[in-house]
Amino acid sequence: MGLVTIGLSVSLDGFVAGPHDGPANPLGDGGGRLFEWWTAGTEQLGPDRRFTPPARSREVVQELFDCGAVISGRRTFDIARGWGGRHPTGAPFFLVTHRRPTEWVGPGTDGTAVTDGILNALEQARAAAGDRPVTVTSASLAQQYLCAGQIDEINLNVVPVLLGDGVALFANLDKAMDLECTRVVESDGVTHLRYRVRK
Amino acid sequence: MGLVTIGLSVSLDGFVAGPHDGPANPLGDGGGRLFEWWTAGTEQLGPDRRFTPPARSREVVQELFDCGAVISGRRTFDIARGWGGRHPTGAPFFLVTHRRPTEWVGPGTDGTAVTDGILNALEQARAAAGDRPVTVTSASLAQQYLCAGQIDEINLNVVPVLLGDGVALFANLDKAMDLECTRVVESDGVTHLRYRVRK
Repeated sequence: MGLVTIGLSVSLDGFVAGPHDGPANPLGDGGGRLFEWWTAGTEQLGPDRRFTPPARSREVVQELFDCGAVISGRRTFDIARGWGGRHPTGAPFFLVTHRRPTEWVGPGTDGTAVTDGILNALEQARAAAGDRPVTVTSASLAQQYLCAGQIDEINLNVVPVLLGDGVALFANLDKAMDLECTRVVESDGVTHLRYRVRK
Repeated sequence: MGLVTIGLSVSLDGFVAGPHDGPANPLGDGGGRLFEWWTAGTEQLGPDRRFTPPARSREVVQELFDCGAVISGRRTFDIARGWGGRHPTGAPFFLVTHRRPTEWVGPGTDGTAVTDGILNALEQARAAAGDRPVTVTSASLAQQYLCAGQIDEINLNVVPVLLGDGVALFANLDKAMDLECTRVVESDGVTHLRYRVRK
């Protein structure tokens, strides 16, 4: 069975979006900074690439793209307009939501709306992923899966900025959790940290 | 003039102490975990050393010990019982406090109590440090000096644990701040991250 991982870009003070986020300001004030590293290598490699992360980030980004399924929350899904029904990784995606959206999930898309809880979403994602990882890409879901003891690995892209406020990644944890750092990659405009959750 | 730096050990979720900290539980629940890396190398090097950080942490620890002055808050000072009047780094230390303590500062010690604010404490610490760095070792002071635009560098020893709650390092910041990562050291039980504050 594949690993269940969290994969997110965060500020050094632990925010996945800046303050005052909303439909008109999806990443919050200053939150765009969290994704600048993602395109930092684009210039060197020519305009034909949609995005090009810096060379030292390639392995990490490749891993993300090799995931077997993605679990997303409603906020991320709405910001991305459901990725038009195809997640950038090419993997099937599972949207955990109370309100089934009218677009970007269901027949003709790679998206499935799951309205009966995080564990059902995980079961479906695991089945779709087979031996490949399931990646959780929303902060609130990451918190819930951590508390439920379902996360094997945490992958953070730590961006050199203090946002001061915003959507906190590690809020609402109901207990301490011991980790082991299993990889550190110093790249351009980002530091990739990978942790295994000790169980 | 020397740099003004923050030097602290933090959990991956950004706490410098766990929840329920107080006189009887100075590092909070689980907070002792933040300092285990510090003594992780002791066994290899024999019992004559008071502590021995892991080999890959030596340069970072040496830098800390080479600082020219330390600025501490009252919480840290009380927890450490004023280091008996001699800070472990050997540097003069400046305690920012509203209530002047009766021990561990003043004549016959390396400690000076400063009761008229953070900027006066910094001025005295700078004068004592000369060309060497001034290191701020308390979370609440780190926040205040960051907001006052006085921090040049942030040195974090990131420990692989999620404490879930406790004393947050990067709380109460009144604005976003752009950083540049200037060093990453992957050591045993700790990752050392150094950032320059862009001004």
